[in-house]
Amino acid sequence: MNKHLGAQSVWFENVVSVNAAASVVGPKEGQGPLGKYFDIVCEDNLFGADSWEKAESEFARRGLDLAVKKSGLPMDNMDYIISGDLLNQSTGSTFGVIDTKRPFFGIFGACSTIGEGMALGSVLIDGGFAYNVLAGAGSHFCAAEKQFRFPLELGSQRPPSSTWTVTGHGAVVLSNLGEGPFVTGATTGKIVDMGVKDQNNMGAVMAPAAADTIASHLRDFNRAPDYYDLILTGDLGYVGRDLLYTLMKDEGYDISRNHKDCGIEIFDRESQDTHSGGSGCACAASVFSAYFWRKLKEKSLNKVLFVPTGALLSPTSFMQGENIPAIAHAVALETSR
Amino acid sequence: MNKHLGAQSVWFENVVSVNAAASVVGPKEGQGPLGKYFDIVCEDNLFGADSWEKAESEFARRGLDLAVKKSGLPMDNMDYIISGDLLNQSTGSTFGVIDTKRPFFGIFGACSTIGEGMALGSVLIDGGFAYNVLAGAGSHFCAAEKQFRFPLELGSQRPPSSTWTVTGHGAVVLSNLGEGPFVTGATTGKIVDMGVKDQNNMGAVMAPAAADTIASHLRDFNRAPDYYDLILTGDLGYVGRDLLYTLMKDEGYDISRNHKDCGIEIFDRESQDTHSGGSGCACAASVFSAYFWRKLKEKSLNKVLFVPTGALLSPTSFMQGENIPAIAHAVALETSR
Repeated sequence: MNKHLGAQSVWFENVVSVNAAASVVGPKEGQGPLGKYFDIVCEDNLFGADSWEKAESEFARRGLDLAVKKSGLPMDNMDYIISGDLLNQSTGSTFGVIDTKRPFFGIFGACSTIGEGMALGSVLIDGGFAYNVLAGAGSHFCAAEKQFRFPLELGSQRPPSSTWTVTGHGAVVLSNLGEGPFVTGATTGKIVDMGVKDQNNMGAVMAPAAADTIASHLRDFNRAPDYYDLILTGDLGYVGRDLLYTLMKDEGYDISRNHKDCGIEIFDRESQDTHSGGSGCACAASVFSAYFWRKLKEKSLNKVLFVPTGALLSPTSFMQGENIPAIAHAVALETSR
Repeated sequence: MNKHLGAQSVWFENVVSVNAAASVVGPKEGQGPLGKYFDIVCEDNLFGADSWEKAESEFARRGLDLAVKKSGLPMDNMDYIISGDLLNQSTGSTFGVIDTKRPFFGIFGACSTIGEGMALGSVLIDGGFAYNVLAGAGSHFCAAEKQFRFPLELGSQRPPSSTWTVTGHGAVVLSNLGEGPFVTGATTGKIVDMGVKDQNNMGAVMAPAAADTIASHLRDFNRAPDYYDLILTGDLGYVGRDLLYTLMKDEGYDISRNHKDCGIEIFDRESQDTHSGGSGCACAASVFSAYFWRKLKEKSLNKVLFVPTGALLSPTSFMQGENIPAIAHAVALETSR
């Protein structure tokens, strides 16, 4: 039996149902256009913790717990937890997962993490290695600014191409039984390096990776873009979206009619001062969990290609003059199979 | 079909053969007891690069390339690369993998990374999602000291319980065809937190995780420790090894007769001033690839339980007073199946 479809893609022959999704976000995200869809909007970014990093773990803890509660299963039924984040050595996930006492795969895909987790979770279920997998990803604006850019106290100006790291967490429960939406295929990203060095323009960094993965997916499955009701990228923002459309046209595809970007959806550009949009592991994870999973669940969307995108840099690699490469992982979600 | 064996373990019903293994290490590792077994021993820790971090990526690049060359396949036949390291945002892997242009899953399991990669790679192959998977892990003493502890220039004293981060990289090629050794099962670790806060005693941090995973593995497969010719932990060192034996006795198992630790094997305690032993992602990965994979290949060992161990901390989590939790992932390697 071979489920390896093409250069980068696999299909799933057994049921992989996304039975539950949960989102926990900060106050700014709660004030955005999707505010009413998030399960929990906390009152302040510290979320009861005494540091931003500990708050990030608290978001993870609450998000993972809530997704499992919504699935109706006990945590002990999660055969694996797969999680990641942006903090050094992924401590946001470590301390968020620690109380679960479940087998754990730590992953790092920067802001593409939820896509990587859903792909690996689907592999575990379809391959017969798990009944239920809990996959999550989170980020925290204050912790990310401190770690990657400047302390907030400096009040540094942000250029128009910059994006705003989402504070929050998104998690899904994948199961071998359920009514869907179903994960029907996945396309694993390659690292793409177009020589971009501007750490305030993540859209430009990640658009080539998104284009590469989407085009590979469409070729591997021999599908036109309009096979999908929606192609949903992670956090390209306005700058990255425009680049993506151009790059996709070069590949022979027009995706402008059925594309949305989680980073554009989560904040109001005019009133929230977030410039090019939202970003961070939590951006794709929380927007998908809060809004687009519901749309699939109620079948107002039936076929969605979810493509979280990640920029693979550290402050050290950046300051040592390295380019900023990127990666994007695609999972195909369908209400029937 | 269900390959989920018990609380934490899976077995593999199809061939998952470790067809090649490669190791690239620094000069100190080359001077150790296993020196002659490493494929490449570089002359200095910079390996031609202009920073330790870039050198770490060079070790990864060379290690991954060499493993693929030794498999006799072109890089394009690697359906997935799975890799991780200790650097912030896993840049050692990112820039080491970047030229391969292959689908990439970034993982983070600290020094247990090669175990996580081999388990996920085996899942991909046994599940029919891949023919060949390249899994690797690396670390660099100088980059790790700078990032986690003190700059080398300070000449800080190291306590007797401290371990020495291995400079190098180890990689394996897993395939659905081959003569073995075969990956026959895997036990995925849970995060274990025993309240240890001493970042200079990683053995004490990781021994409880190793004990938890080994005991779970033996229970899940209903095996006695002497089923294996060798139980091979990652980087517990002398301090962690003694703790592991005590903890395993509490679980009802005596593993002292057929246990070795990669961290103990790689350096000479007396002459190399490495105190409790070696550590880092490269420790388990390079020692397995250089020495124990060969012993399996030539069938002087026939059943090995390989248990890389990782400490899940960052300097930030440590300085904010968090405990240092740990994780260990086990893969069962057998010459017949």
